[in-house]
Amino acid sequence: MNVIPAQIGDTIDEIDTPALIVDLDAFEHNVHKLASFARSAGVRLRPHAKTHKCPTISLKQIAAGAIGQCCQKVGEAEALVRGGVRDVLVSNEVIGVTKLRRLAALAADAAIALCFDATEQVDAASRVATEFGVEIGAMVEIEVGMQRCGVAAGKAASDLARYIGDAPGLRFRGLQAYYGTAQHMPSLGEREDAIRNAASAVRTTLDSLERDGIACEIVSGAGTGTFALESSSGLWNELQAGSYVFMDTDYARIGGKDGGLYTEFQHSLFVLATIMSVPTADRAIVDAGLKSYSGEKGPPWVHGREDVEDVGVSDEHGKLKLGPKAEPLRMGDKVMLIPGHCDPTVNLHDWYVAVRAGRVESLWPITARGASS
Amino acid sequence: MNVIPAQIGDTIDEIDTPALIVDLDAFEHNVHKLASFARSAGVRLRPHAKTHKCPTISLKQIAAGAIGQCCQKVGEAEALVRGGVRDVLVSNEVIGVTKLRRLAALAADAAIALCFDATEQVDAASRVATEFGVEIGAMVEIEVGMQRCGVAAGKAASDLARYIGDAPGLRFRGLQAYYGTAQHMPSLGEREDAIRNAASAVRTTLDSLERDGIACEIVSGAGTGTFALESSSGLWNELQAGSYVFMDTDYARIGGKDGGLYTEFQHSLFVLATIMSVPTADRAIVDAGLKSYSGEKGPPWVHGREDVEDVGVSDEHGKLKLGPKAEPLRMGDKVMLIPGHCDPTVNLHDWYVAVRAGRVESLWPITARGASS
Repeated sequence: MNVIPAQIGDTIDEIDTPALIVDLDAFEHNVHKLASFARSAGVRLRPHAKTHKCPTISLKQIAAGAIGQCCQKVGEAEALVRGGVRDVLVSNEVIGVTKLRRLAALAADAAIALCFDATEQVDAASRVATEFGVEIGAMVEIEVGMQRCGVAAGKAASDLARYIGDAPGLRFRGLQAYYGTAQHMPSLGEREDAIRNAASAVRTTLDSLERDGIACEIVSGAGTGTFALESSSGLWNELQAGSYVFMDTDYARIGGKDGGLYTEFQHSLFVLATIMSVPTADRAIVDAGLKSYSGEKGPPWVHGREDVEDVGVSDEHGKLKLGPKAEPLRMGDKVMLIPGHCDPTVNLHDWYVAVRAGRVESLWPITARGASS
Repeated sequence: MNVIPAQIGDTIDEIDTPALIVDLDAFEHNVHKLASFARSAGVRLRPHAKTHKCPTISLKQIAAGAIGQCCQKVGEAEALVRGGVRDVLVSNEVIGVTKLRRLAALAADAAIALCFDATEQVDAASRVATEFGVEIGAMVEIEVGMQRCGVAAGKAASDLARYIGDAPGLRFRGLQAYYGTAQHMPSLGEREDAIRNAASAVRTTLDSLERDGIACEIVSGAGTGTFALESSSGLWNELQAGSYVFMDTDYARIGGKDGGLYTEFQHSLFVLATIMSVPTADRAIVDAGLKSYSGEKGPPWVHGREDVEDVGVSDEHGKLKLGPKAEPLRMGDKVMLIPGHCDPTVNLHDWYVAVRAGRVESLWPITARGASS
């Protein structure tokens, strides 16, 4: 029920703040960059909607060549299917009959798959799929180094795949092999080591599946920090990157160190804020804080303003410090903040204000905002 | 458009997760504790709705003795007035004619006040109040040590009060004197020093107003970490504490060090999560991450479970490590997480699930969720 921060045709100065801005030129550059990488690498692209939570963006990614979408939550899958996406992988385990029924209901309208790392999950999903008379795709999530969810690589994984194969209503599709923490490792060398270890876990599991005579159609994984490594391994055939559409300071900081491939993506996501107080010449306060961008990766950067630094973030304010080289900031001036972490920042907003050449060109509702169940 | 996580009468196990839980016994204890403190200290209580963003809670605070509500944003003021609150102080500067008009529209139904730290803001608000034919209350925000917004104490502040007094449509009500960063200083001694300095700034300003013959009806400020100090100063006559209704690990951590007054408040806010994967005996993964609680104050605590620690927070997951003394956790088990920082955590949810004696007693919509403009 929040007010929409802009109208189509508005100039930047007319946008109410805080507002979540997408720079369309940079966004489109990013969408096409990864799509053409995937084409030339011969892998499928299934971008992660947990980043953008917006089926309008999903459909643009699909139009550029993606085969469908990933998401993490049933509520996100609901928003995607309602928004026209016809192939959704929930790259996560789903627990509880309520959630499984919501997912099964979607399987009438779209190809739906989810992940498993235990037989109890398989039993529960099989019961619900049978109850609803639908077929649900099933991926075995394997542990590749992150020590979060996932069954051990090799025999344990192929045993779970066989168990799925015997479960009515489920169809074994392949492996979920995602190394989330590797995405944010500071050096390219560390990321290479991590994905080399992950590849070894995938290879062991593929060997075990082959020995057991189980066909494995999909090996899915990778993120914005490592997708080139998974692609060149020859093992993964589906990429799940999400952040590449927007980027953030965390990726910029890492990319800046070693010039990895993803430094070719551009910042396209900003929080537009207004200077609301200028108590001293070297201090300006913006009207956007922790309720407009997430803070766990540090304060946002001030885009395009030399020598201006956000030195103090609170719930509804950011404190900008102007260094000697900074242009003065006056009350009412607008600044563009680059968030520390794009995914949880997006989850704070109801609308994208999509901008090109200084004008609002589109308004995209973030229909999976808050869809965490 | 997200699903409501529970129905009235549900047991805890029936609540869908992640869900934001209010323990009603603890919540009511907190509401009455501060109300009775304020009564015995002879100060008014105007709790801050930026914490809870929910007029249902506002009305409970008012029923317990509060004179009205504070909020930080026009969107919050809209939610409060629509929800039946009749006295709202926006404890913040408001920039731009769009926002000022939204605020003026509320002044027909409720007593509305806001803060100023510059004459341009006064000119703009006066024009809008005149345009709408309403009277808006005006507070001068003074700098008391936080170095965020606020005009310098003393003559500059009383000059601004005089300027407001001359502005049609505005009525000078008093001083906004809030030291936000003092709330989170780790030792009581530091907080005492901070509020002593803040009191000196207030006294200087009151002296200046008196010399200029300007009546100052209200001195408003204080938070959960310092309210006893402002109260005993004899200068503040209105308390703006917000977090006391819920508490969080940040306040618990500070309170644990010196047994300050606010250790008497209880944790009443939890994120209910489900164990979704148990890959090893000492690791359990919950289905709630940075999109269900804010992360900038560290990971949440696991309530009532000895020797279980959240050691890894990601966007949609939390990684629990079970020590040798921990009871085992099984897939499907529910755990209650105490968030690091209550305000930005609340802003991620659409509903409070209010629980007593293991049952859902009420569902309260968080109508100002995301109301950041």
